[in-house]
Amino acid sequence: MINFDFYSPTKIFFGRNRESEIGRIIKQYGFKKVLLHYGQSSIKKSGLYDRIVSSLKEQGIAFVELGGVEPNPKVSLVRKAIQLAKAEQVDLVLAVGGGSVIDSSKATAVGACTDEDIWRFSLHELTPQKALPVGVILTISAAGSELSNSCVLTNSDNWLKRGFNSDIIRPLFAVMNPELTFSVSRYQTGCGIVDIMMHTLERYFTDTSDMELASHLAEGLLKAVMEAGKKAIADPNDYEARATLMLASSFSHNGLTGLGGKLYFTVHRLEHEISGMFDRVAHGAGLAVLFPAWAKYVYRHFTARFARFAYQVMDVSKSLTEEEAAYEGIIRLEAYFRQIGMPVRLSELDIDETSFEKMAEKALGQNDTLNGIIPLNKNQIIEIFEIAK
Amino acid sequence: MINFDFYSPTKIFFGRNRESEIGRIIKQYGFKKVLLHYGQSSIKKSGLYDRIVSSLKEQGIAFVELGGVEPNPKVSLVRKAIQLAKAEQVDLVLAVGGGSVIDSSKATAVGACTDEDIWRFSLHELTPQKALPVGVILTISAAGSELSNSCVLTNSDNWLKRGFNSDIIRPLFAVMNPELTFSVSRYQTGCGIVDIMMHTLERYFTDTSDMELASHLAEGLLKAVMEAGKKAIADPNDYEARATLMLASSFSHNGLTGLGGKLYFTVHRLEHEISGMFDRVAHGAGLAVLFPAWAKYVYRHFTARFARFAYQVMDVSKSLTEEEAAYEGIIRLEAYFRQIGMPVRLSELDIDETSFEKMAEKALGQNDTLNGIIPLNKNQIIEIFEIAK
Repeated sequence: MINFDFYSPTKIFFGRNRESEIGRIIKQYGFKKVLLHYGQSSIKKSGLYDRIVSSLKEQGIAFVELGGVEPNPKVSLVRKAIQLAKAEQVDLVLAVGGGSVIDSSKATAVGACTDEDIWRFSLHELTPQKALPVGVILTISAAGSELSNSCVLTNSDNWLKRGFNSDIIRPLFAVMNPELTFSVSRYQTGCGIVDIMMHTLERYFTDTSDMELASHLAEGLLKAVMEAGKKAIADPNDYEARATLMLASSFSHNGLTGLGGKLYFTVHRLEHEISGMFDRVAHGAGLAVLFPAWAKYVYRHFTARFARFAYQVMDVSKSLTEEEAAYEGIIRLEAYFRQIGMPVRLSELDIDETSFEKMAEKALGQNDTLNGIIPLNKNQIIEIFEIAK
Repeated sequence: MINFDFYSPTKIFFGRNRESEIGRIIKQYGFKKVLLHYGQSSIKKSGLYDRIVSSLKEQGIAFVELGGVEPNPKVSLVRKAIQLAKAEQVDLVLAVGGGSVIDSSKATAVGACTDEDIWRFSLHELTPQKALPVGVILTISAAGSELSNSCVLTNSDNWLKRGFNSDIIRPLFAVMNPELTFSVSRYQTGCGIVDIMMHTLERYFTDTSDMELASHLAEGLLKAVMEAGKKAIADPNDYEARATLMLASSFSHNGLTGLGGKLYFTVHRLEHEISGMFDRVAHGAGLAVLFPAWAKYVYRHFTARFARFAYQVMDVSKSLTEEEAAYEGIIRLEAYFRQIGMPVRLSELDIDETSFEKMAEKALGQNDTLNGIIPLNKNQIIEIFEIAK
């Protein structure tokens, strides 16, 4: 293990109907005025918006609101949210939604405490020093942003997608009712399952040896997610499956499954260029395409680790050699992604080789190589895109 | 799953030599004066005390100190610590030690903010409303008190051992350097392994169905602990094994491995009467004796769960029927406890049937039955002691 700090202070209020307690929860913390931040109109159609508003009013919590957060949340809307938060002097940003809304809220919480433009934090020109507290009512199990320290924005001026990490943006609390995810479409559920798995897979396939607790927890989490994933795709109203996915989304990205390991997130960085350039591509779908391709490119250099994954998580027979098992595990993972309705080739996302060079260049930015268990130069990144073609 | 709240805000500073940062850490939080609370003189002999003191002095942190915390920490010493904390107006209690020192510190932190006697909280006559922050430098992997919300004291007037739980006593931070546990004796290491495992086993063997994420995480944690446990017993200086045990001690008792399940802790409550009445008995040793006996008494009513444990954690062959596997899993667990040098019979603790009735009565207190997946009356508790004889 390497030395590390771990900090996951978010309080979880989990279970049926917990969102109706939102007013009481906010009042207990002593907040007076909330910026209610959300995405599309679905929370109004479902009645969730009304339940939240009536709970806030009941407890005398003032609020202003800003909807319209899009998937791959845009820095332009964050700037509007920051203006509003400042003008109205809110003391809590309440995100009602999934990863995009939460990330937009985190950026707003930082921006509300500074005069600098928020995009400069995404470009790592500045480090956040202060942020308003963020509360979450989670409506989709995927990004894990409800417990994570990360925040990813997209700039539609240049279609760059960039993130920053800081412990000060970890949400103060997250209200998690699995029933709110019953209405998530099969496709979005599939994207979420991939996203959840990827936050652990990116931590699991690292080059730190001896991270046994994290490895065992990671394997357990992955097995739970894969089982629950199939059930939730088969029956969107399966409470227990939805509950498992929701909890797993949080604990897959709060640091737990990578304790003591080096963090690279190589595949995420490759994927950001896809969903950054092609706004139509859901993050989870991009990951489902890229991870198996990346794994096929690197596994021979980390056979033992990929074999362990195959044996422990993908139920690959121990009669296979490590090399055979390592590859078979990747193939089975790809098959699982397909089984839950995910694309596994770039062509299924209507992306062809004419974009590969530009995508590789964007992934590299100013650098010659992309960091990872095998550092990747431009040609190697293009080779991975070729495998994913 | 049942509805639940989860809150584990403790910041972990993990790895080699992290204790030398203690002054800087405390300064960052802005504290000025610390009550340094510890146990026996071993931290002075090992040089740990000097390293801490010099780090505090270097950063200009004032401190007062009180050592002498015993295993099964006594309420009498807590009262002294409270007096000192009040008189000296400390703003942080710094526990240097394991579960006993941390529990003594938590109680001190509560007592310093009230005029009521601290034992009344242990008796559940009062609920803590406020506490000083508690910081930890961990020196033994066992109790998990460094992340937990619980605090158990022993009253030597009547040899009652009683605990209270509250989120406000969860430590603010924990400094965890596995090297500090190299000097823990084989016997104490074994007791710690049992204690770590028990915090998950008590959560795992509950009557809530469908807690899949927690179950998988629990199984992963138990496997990691059992592997690392054998290594740490074989080679006390095995850093990675000690690191796994240390992390596992924390995450086995912060609530993670029981997410969404009902909490009983029946075996802990039985054990408290043993180490409460027989001060010589280490908590982990008492648990190693009682858990297998309890399991043998109840497993037939929860065959599927005990069989899952046997297949997933104890490597019992799937060719055995569930009933056979369930029993075999318990036998293998008992064998594991013996392998790491733990007693598995009351006779090995010099406790015989002349004490059973009194132990059972104490465990019941004012109640007719002890809560659990099977509620236990006095005769049933005595039957379990008979099995453990």
